[in-house]
Amino acid sequence: MILRTSGPSPFGRKVVMAAHILGLVDQIKIVPADTTDPSDSLRLENPLGKIPVLILEDGTTLYDSRVILDYLDHRAGGGVIIPTGESRFAVLKMMALADGVLDACILQVYEKRFRPEDRREVGWVAYQAEKVKRALTWLESNALPSLSGKPDGGAITLAAALGYLDLRFEGLWRNDHPKLVAWLRDFAKAVPSYDLTETPKS
Amino acid sequence: MILRTSGPSPFGRKVVMAAHILGLVDQIKIVPADTTDPSDSLRLENPLGKIPVLILEDGTTLYDSRVILDYLDHRAGGGVIIPTGESRFAVLKMMALADGVLDACILQVYEKRFRPEDRREVGWVAYQAEKVKRALTWLESNALPSLSGKPDGGAITLAAALGYLDLRFEGLWRNDHPKLVAWLRDFAKAVPSYDLTETPKS
Repeated sequence: MILRTSGPSPFGRKVVMAAHILGLVDQIKIVPADTTDPSDSLRLENPLGKIPVLILEDGTTLYDSRVILDYLDHRAGGGVIIPTGESRFAVLKMMALADGVLDACILQVYEKRFRPEDRREVGWVAYQAEKVKRALTWLESNALPSLSGKPDGGAITLAAALGYLDLRFEGLWRNDHPKLVAWLRDFAKAVPSYDLTETPKS
Repeated sequence: MILRTSGPSPFGRKVVMAAHILGLVDQIKIVPADTTDPSDSLRLENPLGKIPVLILEDGTTLYDSRVILDYLDHRAGGGVIIPTGESRFAVLKMMALADGVLDACILQVYEKRFRPEDRREVGWVAYQAEKVKRALTWLESNALPSLSGKPDGGAITLAAALGYLDLRFEGLWRNDHPKLVAWLRDFAKAVPSYDLTETPKS
């Protein structure tokens, strides 16, 4: 399999961590993708032009990261990082929450990347930042994904989201969320691919 | 179950159509939500403040729409609109593609909703519009979801996306995509809840 992604992408990081956890990483070759380059074959592989994309042995492409996690879980036998049965939905919800945090983070990053300073909208950035803040507050006072046994898709996605807050938002979330900080420390201890996939702050 | 959504939300529309298709609609009460109102209980139900949210009989909340579709499928016995086994991944990919179209559409709508005219970014809007255009071009020349038997999650999401292009983008997509136009007509014939959930253009 080929994975089109880029190092700092938190959605790509989810996939790489999942591949490690599922014992599939040796079957995947990473081919870096540039979402801003129209000549990159990425837009043929995914018309949305988004990463990550997984290209299977027969040329089939799969996206987005949630679908790829589901597929890799299937390749590993099924029910490993995404449970079947009743416990499934808490995991899927955690994945959706952490993905939602990432979406709100990325819109804040894009505000700077796509617009000159005088056309940035303070209210929009605050609106996205509030989503992140409410989600972190909720997480801090609710049960976090278990780290006994293999981490599930919710744990992987949450770790990717917190790692992205470290990378792009100066880790400020750490000041007010001791339980989440401890959880991420335990995740990194239990999942060596977390440190392995970390993007150095430039 | 209680569904927090609003009429024009394409993500909410997906859920309502799925509930009809799965025979679960009588078990769901819709309670309209206002994403812009901080006093709406929505932000307690989903810290991201996004719709739709499904509230189960025991108070558990589920989001986002993809998770809710998976849950409703489970309530209906499983494997009905989201197949298990190998055919699963084409359906999940179609759901991700149509959700990606919707995300790119909504960012264009929000550009107008959240910013005064002189601070809108033409390049950003074009960047999102190109995602939609490439996705529609790809769909027009590839296999569309089957409409024999119950429509799957891919069909439901694609119909919601095309319906949103009709609602918010003057149906201009219809000019260049005859195969998609025919597909949506067939979908609406096969799935009465499509017309039932249509938001009148104001």
